[in-house]
Amino acid sequence: MTRLPKRVDFPVSDVRRYLEPGPIILVSSRRRDETNIMTLGWHTVLEFSPSLVGLMISSANHSHRMIRDSGECVINLPTTALTDTVVRIGNSTGAEIDKFAAFGLTAINAETVQAPLIGECHACFECRLHDDALVERYNFFIFEVVRAQVATSPKHPETLHYTGDGRFMVSGRMISRRSQFRPEMLG
Amino acid sequence: MTRLPKRVDFPVSDVRRYLEPGPIILVSSRRRDETNIMTLGWHTVLEFSPSLVGLMISSANHSHRMIRDSGECVINLPTTALTDTVVRIGNSTGAEIDKFAAFGLTAINAETVQAPLIGECHACFECRLHDDALVERYNFFIFEVVRAQVATSPKHPETLHYTGDGRFMVSGRMISRRSQFRPEMLG
Repeated sequence: MTRLPKRVDFPVSDVRRYLEPGPIILVSSRRRDETNIMTLGWHTVLEFSPSLVGLMISSANHSHRMIRDSGECVINLPTTALTDTVVRIGNSTGAEIDKFAAFGLTAINAETVQAPLIGECHACFECRLHDDALVERYNFFIFEVVRAQVATSPKHPETLHYTGDGRFMVSGRMISRRSQFRPEMLG
Repeated sequence: MTRLPKRVDFPVSDVRRYLEPGPIILVSSRRRDETNIMTLGWHTVLEFSPSLVGLMISSANHSHRMIRDSGECVINLPTTALTDTVVRIGNSTGAEIDKFAAFGLTAINAETVQAPLIGECHACFECRLHDDALVERYNFFIFEVVRAQVATSPKHPETLHYTGDGRFMVSGRMISRRSQFRPEMLG
C-alpha cells in the first residue's frame, strides 16, 4: 500500500511552475457514474490569471467525449514513481476497463468539479472548460484551473517527458539563473 | 569560437520527439531587415500531419508583431550549453538590441521562410502560420512546421524546462518502456 502524498493548496496563477516544463500529465474525468484517466503530453499554459491551460485531447480517446460532455477535468501530475502506471494508463482504454480499479489508484473527491483527483499524484489541478472554439477543428480545449493542490514533498519531483516511441526523458535536476534575471521577469 | 552543430533533415511529422517534452525554445523571426529572437515555454504539439504546433506569443513581446506581420518563424531548440544565452535573450528586448549580434549567435538562412535559423541550436523547425483564430483572444498562434533539421549529436541532448522565477529543470536522461507499449502506440 503506497502512502498518498500530503497535498496543500497552491495558487492557481502559479501552476506554470509544474506545467510549463512540459511533463506527461494524467487527465481524469467523470460522466455520471463513469470515471476515466488518460495520459497527455500535448498541453500548454496560456495565461496566468485567469489561470488558463490548453489541452489537445484527441477524439480517438474515450476521455474526449466525457470531458466534452461534462466540461470538466482534473490535471494530475505523476512523478517517475508512477512511470509504469503512466504507461499502463496510456496503453489501455476506458471503454474497456475502470482504470482507477485496474491500476490500484485512489479516486479522491474534488472540491469544485465532479471529476476525481488521483490520490497518488504530486499535484492536482481542477479544471473547468473555458473556451471550446478550437475543439471541433483541433481537439484543443482551453480550461481554467479553478483549484490547485500540490504535495509538500519532494520539493523537486522527477517528472516524465514523453518523446514518442515508448521513451521518456526524465526531468528533475534544478538550475537557477535567478541572479541574471531582470526583477520584473521574476515572481 | 563555438563550432556549430551539424544538422541533417528530419521528418516534420516527428518533431514531437523534441517539442513534446516541453523544452524552452528560441523563436526567431524576420520582418524586412530586422531579425529577432525570443524565449518561449508556452507551446504544444497539436497534430502529426500536417505538423502543427501552437505557440503562445505574448503581445508584450517585440517578436509578436514581427511574427504576426510576416506569418513565419523558426523554432530553435537550445541545449544546456546555451543556458546563459537563453537567459540573456529572455531578459532583453529586440526593440533595443540586435540579439544575434549582441549574443554572438549565427543567423543562417532558412530554406522555406525568411526568418533565420540559429546556427548554435540543436534543432531548427521552419514554421508558417496555419491558423490565427486564437491570436486576438489568447495570443495563440498555430503554425505548420514545413522543414525540420536536427543535429546528429549529441543523441540525447540536455534541454532546459522553465519553471518560472529564474529556475529551470534539466531534462536529458532517457528511460524506455517500449516493451510495455501496444505496437500501435509506437512509431
